[in-house]
Amino acid sequence: MSAMSVDDIDTPAPVVDLDRVERNLKRAADYFHEKKIALRPHIKTHKIVEFSRRQVELGAVGITCQKLGEAEVMADGGISDILMTFPIVGEPKLKRLMALAKRIRMSAVTDSTEVADAMARAASEAGVRIELLVECDTGTGRCGVQSADEAVALAERIANTRGVSFGGLMVYPEKGKVARTRAWIAEALAALKRSGLEAKTVSVGGTPDMYHAHELEFSTEHRPGTYIYSDRAITAAGVGTLDDTALRVVATVVSRPAEDRAIIDAGSKTLTSDLLGFPDHGVILEYPKARIVRLNEEHGIVNLAESPEKPRIGERVTIVPNHACVVSNLFDSVYGVSDGRVVREIPVAARGLVR
Amino acid sequence: MSAMSVDDIDTPAPVVDLDRVERNLKRAADYFHEKKIALRPHIKTHKIVEFSRRQVELGAVGITCQKLGEAEVMADGGISDILMTFPIVGEPKLKRLMALAKRIRMSAVTDSTEVADAMARAASEAGVRIELLVECDTGTGRCGVQSADEAVALAERIANTRGVSFGGLMVYPEKGKVARTRAWIAEALAALKRSGLEAKTVSVGGTPDMYHAHELEFSTEHRPGTYIYSDRAITAAGVGTLDDTALRVVATVVSRPAEDRAIIDAGSKTLTSDLLGFPDHGVILEYPKARIVRLNEEHGIVNLAESPEKPRIGERVTIVPNHACVVSNLFDSVYGVSDGRVVREIPVAARGLVR
Repeated sequence: MSAMSVDDIDTPAPVVDLDRVERNLKRAADYFHEKKIALRPHIKTHKIVEFSRRQVELGAVGITCQKLGEAEVMADGGISDILMTFPIVGEPKLKRLMALAKRIRMSAVTDSTEVADAMARAASEAGVRIELLVECDTGTGRCGVQSADEAVALAERIANTRGVSFGGLMVYPEKGKVARTRAWIAEALAALKRSGLEAKTVSVGGTPDMYHAHELEFSTEHRPGTYIYSDRAITAAGVGTLDDTALRVVATVVSRPAEDRAIIDAGSKTLTSDLLGFPDHGVILEYPKARIVRLNEEHGIVNLAESPEKPRIGERVTIVPNHACVVSNLFDSVYGVSDGRVVREIPVAARGLVR
Repeated sequence: MSAMSVDDIDTPAPVVDLDRVERNLKRAADYFHEKKIALRPHIKTHKIVEFSRRQVELGAVGITCQKLGEAEVMADGGISDILMTFPIVGEPKLKRLMALAKRIRMSAVTDSTEVADAMARAASEAGVRIELLVECDTGTGRCGVQSADEAVALAERIANTRGVSFGGLMVYPEKGKVARTRAWIAEALAALKRSGLEAKTVSVGGTPDMYHAHELEFSTEHRPGTYIYSDRAITAAGVGTLDDTALRVVATVVSRPAEDRAIIDAGSKTLTSDLLGFPDHGVILEYPKARIVRLNEEHGIVNLAESPEKPRIGERVTIVPNHACVVSNLFDSVYGVSDGRVVREIPVAARGLVR
């Protein structure tokens, strides 16, 4: 495979530039090292064992997983410290979490007494102790306690229950709302302190604001995910440029039915329908003024009206997707390339493990 | 596994009701039999070998595939007649198509001389002959020749080239535009006749208009895909009701952070971001007034403001997705159920085979 060029890969294909991956990982590792904030990458973006290992080699304290299936694959791959940032609900998942906790350091999050109490029971029965972070909703409108008072009440309950320990706070803040996040968390930390509780960890997430992590002076840990690959949304948020995007989709023009229309072999089963606020479905690097205006499952419909150059049938194009994480989740493997050569095919070992 | 109830499956999980599948398949088979239109189901929806076989057992003349990987899996599974409705471009794919054509009956489509000529060369070299349908764009704005004149010119070229034969016309019409499709195709058929060319096959696609197939009096074949599972979009188009939807996603409520908000463990990596025109991401059968207003990768954010009943943490809900085809493509297997019991886990054997 070492002699294979990117041009020899059949399409549509996810191609990961390993040099860009390394650059993106190092840039982040250097920043968090300098700012003395622990780095705990979210591996939902790549779901690849060797990349998790590399993140730890470069200084990450451990990784973040959203799903137990991901955590099991990464534990098997040698990762020894995993934070689960999705609420673990139900006996089958609690059993699997406890089995992992006997092998490696596992911690988890909660925004409810239901989840905290069930976790405590399962941990007690298994003879382990799970550190729980209280998830805070500082405005994202997803999971999380809604106020400092709720955070304190839940933290107290955790601190007083066998099988679990209170580790601190966890937040996935809304992009660009650093000031609001700071005010919310500062209030919760003060309230915890008044109650005699210490938040050893304040874990913050997200790639878009990752290089502002130090502006949240109480941050002890950050959980960026997409930074390893970057994508159109991340560059639009001001982190890096299109040249830093490491995951790209190579596609072929299969039809030119009209002067201003091309059809490519990458549709929603390759690029996904995630718009992430964009009016179209990714950037075609060779034809930046061509617009992927619509996706069917296997067809990408490209409007060439604004593009002075028009591709011919059979031509290959390179697409930066809007959202890398959901694209990589569609493929059993990605092609790792360096200097335009295919170095190896890399299994996306935790792909599709939604349970 | 025979004693397992749907309630024993961990979530999120794709569950396929085998009784509804059988009912949906039979209803279509009966209709097309009565109307004397050949049925050639598009298997991109289910990607499951046993369902392709059942479709053929019930009278389908063969199947439709979009990707060669799908066709290879289905040929291995015993399907002996496959139409490829996606333009086959490039040497690797042409070689695979010819290898298949030596084993089973393969036909294909084209809207360009480039694709037709390359196919002819590859077929000649392989010593086979491929029947080609000329794809027509009757207003969908995807692939397809743009006029009757173009259709005739391409058909003539195919008819006069070794390795390929002209089989007729293929169209994936825009939903609800039966009159426009009829006018377009009628004109092309008349023009072909004047040129001494016969379109043995006129192959029409799509589930939304499938029970209007007989209104296109020249139709010889129909290629519905989604009808096997149905989904929210298909029922909204007037084909069946939510009770006919056979693929559902079972999810668990993992958080109730606020009075009017629930978080479920099905996000865009389970339901996909395909809106298909809907303002939200599927129907929760137990809480029809709850709205899945936003998806993150693993979180479904549910607005309960209009729902008088509110689910508790740990409760399971059943979701009819907007678009079944892209959901089934995310999972390596689905759970086949009958009468609420899990009958078997069925591999989605052609999942993710985008090349």
